[in-house]
Amino acid sequence: MFTQEQKLASVRIVLVEPAGDRNVGAISRVMKNFGLQQLILVNPQCDPHSEDAQHMAVHAGDVLAAATIVDTLPEALHGCVRAIATTARDRFAPLEHPHTALPWLLETPLEQASALIFGPECRGLSNQELNYAQRFVRIPSNPNYSSLNLAQAVAVCCYELTQSISFAESNRSAPPIDYAAFEELEGYYQHLQAVLLAIGYVYPHTAASRMEKFRQIFNRAYLDKNEVSMLRGILTQMQWALQKNADRL
Amino acid sequence: MFTQEQKLASVRIVLVEPAGDRNVGAISRVMKNFGLQQLILVNPQCDPHSEDAQHMAVHAGDVLAAATIVDTLPEALHGCVRAIATTARDRFAPLEHPHTALPWLLETPLEQASALIFGPECRGLSNQELNYAQRFVRIPSNPNYSSLNLAQAVAVCCYELTQSISFAESNRSAPPIDYAAFEELEGYYQHLQAVLLAIGYVYPHTAASRMEKFRQIFNRAYLDKNEVSMLRGILTQMQWALQKNADRL
Repeated sequence: MFTQEQKLASVRIVLVEPAGDRNVGAISRVMKNFGLQQLILVNPQCDPHSEDAQHMAVHAGDVLAAATIVDTLPEALHGCVRAIATTARDRFAPLEHPHTALPWLLETPLEQASALIFGPECRGLSNQELNYAQRFVRIPSNPNYSSLNLAQAVAVCCYELTQSISFAESNRSAPPIDYAAFEELEGYYQHLQAVLLAIGYVYPHTAASRMEKFRQIFNRAYLDKNEVSMLRGILTQMQWALQKNADRL
Repeated sequence: MFTQEQKLASVRIVLVEPAGDRNVGAISRVMKNFGLQQLILVNPQCDPHSEDAQHMAVHAGDVLAAATIVDTLPEALHGCVRAIATTARDRFAPLEHPHTALPWLLETPLEQASALIFGPECRGLSNQELNYAQRFVRIPSNPNYSSLNLAQAVAVCCYELTQSISFAESNRSAPPIDYAAFEELEGYYQHLQAVLLAIGYVYPHTAASRMEKFRQIFNRAYLDKNEVSMLRGILTQMQWALQKNADRL
């Protein structure tokens, strides 16, 4: 058994290339305000341990000091079974309301990590970065000025995540699902791409855009570990069937 | 008649003795992000028009420049028919959740103003200041560190205030999805089963139970027509690759 508070503390807040040290400090503070603890910085473009950052963190210096720095987004998501990205790019995928989507991050067993991803202040998340998430939220805002400060966006999402706790608890009766982790899904996508190249369904120059579509399909399906094994089993069997024919040539 | 957006723009955000010029700037920005326009500063302890304030306001310089400065809280509330104060002082009055109380500010005729009051960064609102409000909200937060940055608290409240009216809008922005019809999905499942039999991934006596699992995966993904075509394209290409090898035998 675990409490919802423990689960909340296991959610990773992932900032991709944050450029403002004050933002990183303010985010540490608001994370602690709402019971979150795990801050991961992907290739930060500022000094997250500057005086300004610490000043903004106030009494959340512990969250700031414990922030993990990694080089790439996949590293930040290693071991995660669920990831939601924040974006305003509505051409990419259906964008959900934070209230609708965020509680989903808490509906996994305690030992299965989940992540909420925020892009850089200047540009937001790229399509390639968005590919690593299963769901996408946009904070509804004024169309005439929709760009929230990064720390404000994190504050709103942390608030919404916390508010869902009692809601999530009432849904806890479903049996736990052994969701596939990030690296297992990535392994499947690489395997799929290799087979699609081998059978001539894609070519090296078309593979990336096609794979993006397939990622969207399978990310939406919230695959568990068995399902990933089954899907990879098809690919392996396909490779075997092709090889068997080839051997007989 | 008036729109909800107009009503939102008539809600006053009242900051009592704000001490941080950067906070005032950040608050201007987040107000504009959520469609609010009326900022009132009661006896500010900082220069709300400083470079730092303007820097933080970014594209909400208009909201910042139009901020009204008054000497006392009663002046700030002049003409208001409803006022909600933010506080953590639970001895003073019943504290409500922002989600419960804030929409009440929008339920007045357009010409009747309402206000949301925030205290100084260092001390919050005094009992005397709280006396001017009819309702009181507290943002639920971590009991170990419940003190939010002022601009973050305003962000959360502005977000919550707009949610009652922006829900429908945010759903409206998603483009309609051309979902696959029943018979198109069935066509895919039959095609998949034929290929899985051909490559030896399933046998006639195991096909049904396996196919059930694959149906569960793809049914969860809510496939659109294009996606079904893409998935069938993989199967067709696999059949072609196998046949090509077979022909060469």
